[in-house]
Amino acid sequence: MERLYVKQVKEVKDDEKVLVKGWVYKIYELGHVNFVRLRDKTGILQLVLTKEMCAGLRLEMCIEASGVKVSNEKAIDGVEIQVSELSIIGKSYYDELPFEINKGKITASLETQLDHRVISLRQPKIMATFKIQEEIQTAFRAYLKERNFTEVHTPKIIASGTEGGSEMFTVNYFDHRAFLAQSPQFYKQMMVGVGFERVFEIGHAYRAELHNTWRHLNEYVSMDIEMGFIKDEYEIMDLEEGFMNFLFKHLNETCADVLKMFDIKLPEAIKIPRIKLTEAQDIILEEYGKRSPVGNLDAEGEKLFSQYVKEKYDSDFVFLTKYTRSKRPMYTMPDDEDDTVTKSFDLIYKGLEITTGGQRIHDYEMLVENIKKFGMKPEDFDFYTENFKYGMPPHGGLAIGLERLTMKILDLQNIREASLLPRDMKRITP
Amino acid sequence: MERLYVKQVKEVKDDEKVLVKGWVYKIYELGHVNFVRLRDKTGILQLVLTKEMCAGLRLEMCIEASGVKVSNEKAIDGVEIQVSELSIIGKSYYDELPFEINKGKITASLETQLDHRVISLRQPKIMATFKIQEEIQTAFRAYLKERNFTEVHTPKIIASGTEGGSEMFTVNYFDHRAFLAQSPQFYKQMMVGVGFERVFEIGHAYRAELHNTWRHLNEYVSMDIEMGFIKDEYEIMDLEEGFMNFLFKHLNETCADVLKMFDIKLPEAIKIPRIKLTEAQDIILEEYGKRSPVGNLDAEGEKLFSQYVKEKYDSDFVFLTKYTRSKRPMYTMPDDEDDTVTKSFDLIYKGLEITTGGQRIHDYEMLVENIKKFGMKPEDFDFYTENFKYGMPPHGGLAIGLERLTMKILDLQNIREASLLPRDMKRITP
Repeated sequence: MERLYVKQVKEVKDDEKVLVKGWVYKIYELGHVNFVRLRDKTGILQLVLTKEMCAGLRLEMCIEASGVKVSNEKAIDGVEIQVSELSIIGKSYYDELPFEINKGKITASLETQLDHRVISLRQPKIMATFKIQEEIQTAFRAYLKERNFTEVHTPKIIASGTEGGSEMFTVNYFDHRAFLAQSPQFYKQMMVGVGFERVFEIGHAYRAELHNTWRHLNEYVSMDIEMGFIKDEYEIMDLEEGFMNFLFKHLNETCADVLKMFDIKLPEAIKIPRIKLTEAQDIILEEYGKRSPVGNLDAEGEKLFSQYVKEKYDSDFVFLTKYTRSKRPMYTMPDDEDDTVTKSFDLIYKGLEITTGGQRIHDYEMLVENIKKFGMKPEDFDFYTENFKYGMPPHGGLAIGLERLTMKILDLQNIREASLLPRDMKRITP
Repeated sequence: MERLYVKQVKEVKDDEKVLVKGWVYKIYELGHVNFVRLRDKTGILQLVLTKEMCAGLRLEMCIEASGVKVSNEKAIDGVEIQVSELSIIGKSYYDELPFEINKGKITASLETQLDHRVISLRQPKIMATFKIQEEIQTAFRAYLKERNFTEVHTPKIIASGTEGGSEMFTVNYFDHRAFLAQSPQFYKQMMVGVGFERVFEIGHAYRAELHNTWRHLNEYVSMDIEMGFIKDEYEIMDLEEGFMNFLFKHLNETCADVLKMFDIKLPEAIKIPRIKLTEAQDIILEEYGKRSPVGNLDAEGEKLFSQYVKEKYDSDFVFLTKYTRSKRPMYTMPDDEDDTVTKSFDLIYKGLEITTGGQRIHDYEMLVENIKKFGMKPEDFDFYTENFKYGMPPHGGLAIGLERLTMKILDLQNIREASLLPRDMKRITP
């Protein structure tokens, strides 16, 4: 007999025999009748067992059970299996579970949950987080492929940093010192230049930032885009706004159950306000009496400004534009009208920056000049600037932090909840 | 006017005005008439220019050109543009190209091509390699998603190795020494155990092997699969055989042009012979007088045995099964009938191993015992063995090296040709 998934059992006629497999999620021993809730990849199902069958069972064991499907309006989805044969196919070896996962919210601290990720991920709501995360990537890929983008993989072991080598992890690479890439920036630009024109990458990025906060991971998944033959940075913003609309539609279609579980309602259509950074800083000062750092918002400023935008524009998103030149990387294109600022932007979503993007310098001489202006040596970037000697089109791009986006969509409190196995300053296991 | 891709221009009616953008691939200055071949993401197109327009042009500059489309049976695909306006949008700054890319095969050495990847990737045949590579991943993802697999990202910064820490790159991770993951082995098993049941990952893997050969990369893309509730390792082989059939069909449909360019004919349907390792060793000894190392084939053995299988079974593929226990990692499931061998396999394709796979041990006590048998300490693997305390189903999986598969499909001579930006013992740039 072929195994059925839990969600398939619901389609079966009453009194037909079925075979199911999964984990023991709950056990109710009532003496005269015994129930087990079986959990598999697709859902939870009630099994009715004899006392003898139930005797050896423990929570989270792996079992397979066969029996007839019957309707029972008291069971989940009105379905249960009257089990005739049961066997344990994955034994348990614990004295006690580290914490309970079958009683709604887990009461253990996040740290304890992460220490025992092998338990916490089993909780249906936690697992559902990663259904959303997978669908974000599916939507990202579909949206870009429709628009003639090519997916690439670029090296994560690199010889020098995009921004001078600060905040990078070093790797002992045979006889060299190498780094883990902070971003695929240089390489995605290269791929535009060699003729892919439009590329994207979904891959790991590494930041050796000394921050242990709710919004930082030291290893995260970056969804990167780079696009040639653009007019200006607004074309990149248009692309991202289009993606967010596409994404929300996709999630509403594919993850309605998960969104309901998290009590999230995604907007049908969004239009993202675009506001200059300096204007945002002025507003934050006027409205909230808070001064911002030069050329940026801090975490509190992002939060306050999001609040303002939500009230004024009824938008969870806002593009901040025209960042100060000295605060953006050397490859950022200066503005045409005011060369103290750049053709760059951040996207803030519910109080958190989830994207940095902009137009890049595409002219070799301009780039070399700018590297010097930043106090760096052009020769340290030869492998990068070589791209620009052979005809680089006007181009730009952006990066979206996958875990940040996941976190904000689901209103999670800590970015670690949006990573299967997060890496932070103190955590490299499990 | 909206820019058209080269392949779109062919659809346009004669005498209609079009705008195209791309790189200068060839220049023919004949005095009375001047041609430029423009290359974009989709193809190559002939432009007819005045002498004045042509004057400032150099190879590989980025240009945009508008003019009317006309038919000319002497031009590529019978189409050309009579250009009325032309501008340079990405200047060039070189004295001389490092090597020519517009004369068929590049004559520069592979090392020189890799030093100037920003040039060599522009050659249409080299770029086409990565169309195949992208479609391999598209097929892999589609095949697995249809079969209820979930795509995951697991950490590449890890605390200890899957096989004891040899041949791993070390990372200076704040105050710790960490490693770059050789494989997502432990984590993909964990994801099966927590309830994803079936997972795959397309991600980087790192090997600090001291090999500078035609078939080794130190950073490569691993296409990993892990699958719960299996009967035995043959189910994993069936899955891979099914994938190869799916892949070839997909490539025949989506990449006919590339396959033609490389003069490759992919089989319509394949059936992969399954032969025990020891039998293969015997055959190699009998047929070719070559002795194999204990419990494995060496590179020459793989080649010779592939030759034998091609002659005897007309197959480019062969599964080698039942590898010796001591030569497989500690997590490999011993065979039911002969416990000196394991339920594991390799897939050899045109003389090269492209996959290692098998069933894994899923019982906690058996795993701990086996770790000891391998002379390792179970406590060093606590974060891994914890998975097995809470009900792990019978499971198994495999990994396919993306670059190796790409190389073999296209009959490339060196694996570096199948990586956009390869990393080897001597190369961490560009």
